[in-house]
Amino acid sequence: MAAGNLPVSPLAVPLPEMPPVPGARLATGMAEIRYRAREDVTLMAFPQGTTVAGVFTRNRCPGAPVDWCRAALAKGGGRARGLVVTAGNSNVFTGRAGRETCEATARVMAELLGCRPREVFLASTGVIGERLPTEKLTGALPGLMPSLSEANWHAAARAIMTTDTFPKAATRTARIGEATVTINGIAKGSGMIAPDMATMLCFVATDARLPAAVQQRLLKRGVDRSFNRITVDSDTSTSDTVLLFATGAARHPRVPAAGGPILRDFARALDDLLLDLALQVVRDGEGAQKLVRIDVTGAVTARSAHRIAMAIANSPLVKTAIAGGDANWGRIVMAVGKAGEPADRDRLSVAVGGVWMAREGGVIPGYDETPVVEHMRGREIEITVDIGLGRGSATVWTCDLTHGYIDINGSYRS
Amino acid sequence: MAAGNLPVSPLAVPLPEMPPVPGARLATGMAEIRYRAREDVTLMAFPQGTTVAGVFTRNRCPGAPVDWCRAALAKGGGRARGLVVTAGNSNVFTGRAGRETCEATARVMAELLGCRPREVFLASTGVIGERLPTEKLTGALPGLMPSLSEANWHAAARAIMTTDTFPKAATRTARIGEATVTINGIAKGSGMIAPDMATMLCFVATDARLPAAVQQRLLKRGVDRSFNRITVDSDTSTSDTVLLFATGAARHPRVPAAGGPILRDFARALDDLLLDLALQVVRDGEGAQKLVRIDVTGAVTARSAHRIAMAIANSPLVKTAIAGGDANWGRIVMAVGKAGEPADRDRLSVAVGGVWMAREGGVIPGYDETPVVEHMRGREIEITVDIGLGRGSATVWTCDLTHGYIDINGSYRS
Repeated sequence: MAAGNLPVSPLAVPLPEMPPVPGARLATGMAEIRYRAREDVTLMAFPQGTTVAGVFTRNRCPGAPVDWCRAALAKGGGRARGLVVTAGNSNVFTGRAGRETCEATARVMAELLGCRPREVFLASTGVIGERLPTEKLTGALPGLMPSLSEANWHAAARAIMTTDTFPKAATRTARIGEATVTINGIAKGSGMIAPDMATMLCFVATDARLPAAVQQRLLKRGVDRSFNRITVDSDTSTSDTVLLFATGAARHPRVPAAGGPILRDFARALDDLLLDLALQVVRDGEGAQKLVRIDVTGAVTARSAHRIAMAIANSPLVKTAIAGGDANWGRIVMAVGKAGEPADRDRLSVAVGGVWMAREGGVIPGYDETPVVEHMRGREIEITVDIGLGRGSATVWTCDLTHGYIDINGSYRS
Repeated sequence: MAAGNLPVSPLAVPLPEMPPVPGARLATGMAEIRYRAREDVTLMAFPQGTTVAGVFTRNRCPGAPVDWCRAALAKGGGRARGLVVTAGNSNVFTGRAGRETCEATARVMAELLGCRPREVFLASTGVIGERLPTEKLTGALPGLMPSLSEANWHAAARAIMTTDTFPKAATRTARIGEATVTINGIAKGSGMIAPDMATMLCFVATDARLPAAVQQRLLKRGVDRSFNRITVDSDTSTSDTVLLFATGAARHPRVPAAGGPILRDFARALDDLLLDLALQVVRDGEGAQKLVRIDVTGAVTARSAHRIAMAIANSPLVKTAIAGGDANWGRIVMAVGKAGEPADRDRLSVAVGGVWMAREGGVIPGYDETPVVEHMRGREIEITVDIGLGRGSATVWTCDLTHGYIDINGSYRS
């Protein structure tokens, strides 16, 4: 199934208006890496002094661009001048050829920007195991430079898509001291979307001026509260990448090296933007018909609550029940039990759509099923589980498991 | 979807002829616990001196019958006289009522057999969270006693089914000294089969005479090599139960308390029988169209190899690719990487149907795709992954993920 042939997710949300982020310029174009007649290359260019933070896949077999970014972050002192993103080929499991593609791309882009290759970041998404045609990519870059503009966020959100069914973007403002800064982000993907099409990518830019260590800490924290709380199918891409660029163009008081209270509003806005984008990714989950929020309370720790919530969110039996409109709390109990975390069957309580169906180890006799049935017919499902042991809580999001998932992922590679 | 309405799995195998196991008598009957007009109760009765071993679900929210069996094993010194199995209601998440059902069932059965309640073992499979109608069950038991017979293995294999599409049984013989003993087993389930229908159950009987500790050790080892190497959907039932009864009716040399070489052939036959039954369970996996064997070699340890193999077997993206006939080694690489075990992308090799497609981190240029395409069209798929780091190896089995799985599990509870 080729990109663009899938019906738009019923959970799609429209693109918001995206203001410029002073200093961050974008361009998109066609390199025909895999797709024909659509834009598949996205560039970002940043002014001198821009800092960068990154969070990457935990998959032990990452793609060459992930290796490149990790090394650039570690050796480049958190400085960035450019970003090159390709859609259609992930440059994963391509051995030495993959590394050479990264080096050549960064070298050409660095020459165009007048910076060092280590200040250029790379991300790719698409087919695994095929060589990325380096010359097509590097040959396309010079022609894109004149179109770099602070206004191209919508085009970039579209050009990084593979088989996403809608483009994903979000924007926020935040106060730092008396100044207002902007944070823009775009994202693509939902676990692994279609035959051989992998990867969740997210690129965020702000005009705030941040110490690199603080920036990395804020991004890590924000990703833990957003992208690390969503799951579509439990499969971890080899290319997941979240990058945050800060151009420093805004005029706000200097942020101390340790961060601190001056960044409180910025951190809140960044967390909010990342969660917005993460939920858009779930809304475009393969075959998704329903967005599911799972709240776990009363676990022994927050970490334990998170693991239990993820066990529920990744259970094929829970997800198929939701697809069928079935508030199947028996399967939820099963998923709690299989998480391997402390749980006592006789203290468990389960609510769906705010209605408690089971409490302390047994079904509540005569609970009112009508509002539950109504809730399960909707697009947004809420499941609450109280473990009854402690004060640890967590929230995660997922989508249902439908025939659409099988259609998308079980069709023969074209 | 009600039991019996599903088409028989294309991977089904016929019931073998089942010889008697001297001392083990079986009966089946109708208690109408949930189903109408089909047998839903299975009894086994054993002579004095019968020993028992058991292995149970690791789910932290087990059903009342699992609690009962664990306590009976721990407090009863490994002795057994009877077994009562019900299909249609799992007696899980039923609180005090569930415990009382277990106590009443064991008490009535013990009176009928002239033994202590702790010598009666219990297992149930079916809907979660509904009270099991105790009187229907206990009331049915006396009428079944006259039909207890060593010949009823086929009927028992059918009566323990819920939405299994074919009955599952296996038989082996083994030499202990100069004597030949018989081992019979029946099983049901495949993870969790249909709306609210959970559980894998397996009951094995032999006429061997075994020290209880040796019997437990042999069973544990055999389950580790069979049922713990299969997965359908990664969901762990709240009721999984494997019981091995040894009547001691065979005339063979006394087995020493420590076991030892005299049991070598018995252990081999038991392992073989358990693997046979486990593979029958996979062959009846929800919606299964293909049986998949995954061999992992070259991992740092056997445990690491097992985890990597299970990550591949549980990956929805790998399973849907197999359903679509796609030898998608990129998804296999992804699954290796997400297992969290030591792996080096640049040393990985992947074969499908015996043909190496990727070696040491990259696709093999010009490998012959024809036999791979042919292999993927078949019913039995073989995937081999060499990690290239050490000498740990493991084999697991699973099935593909198809529209049938969504049909079975996503339909509204009737």
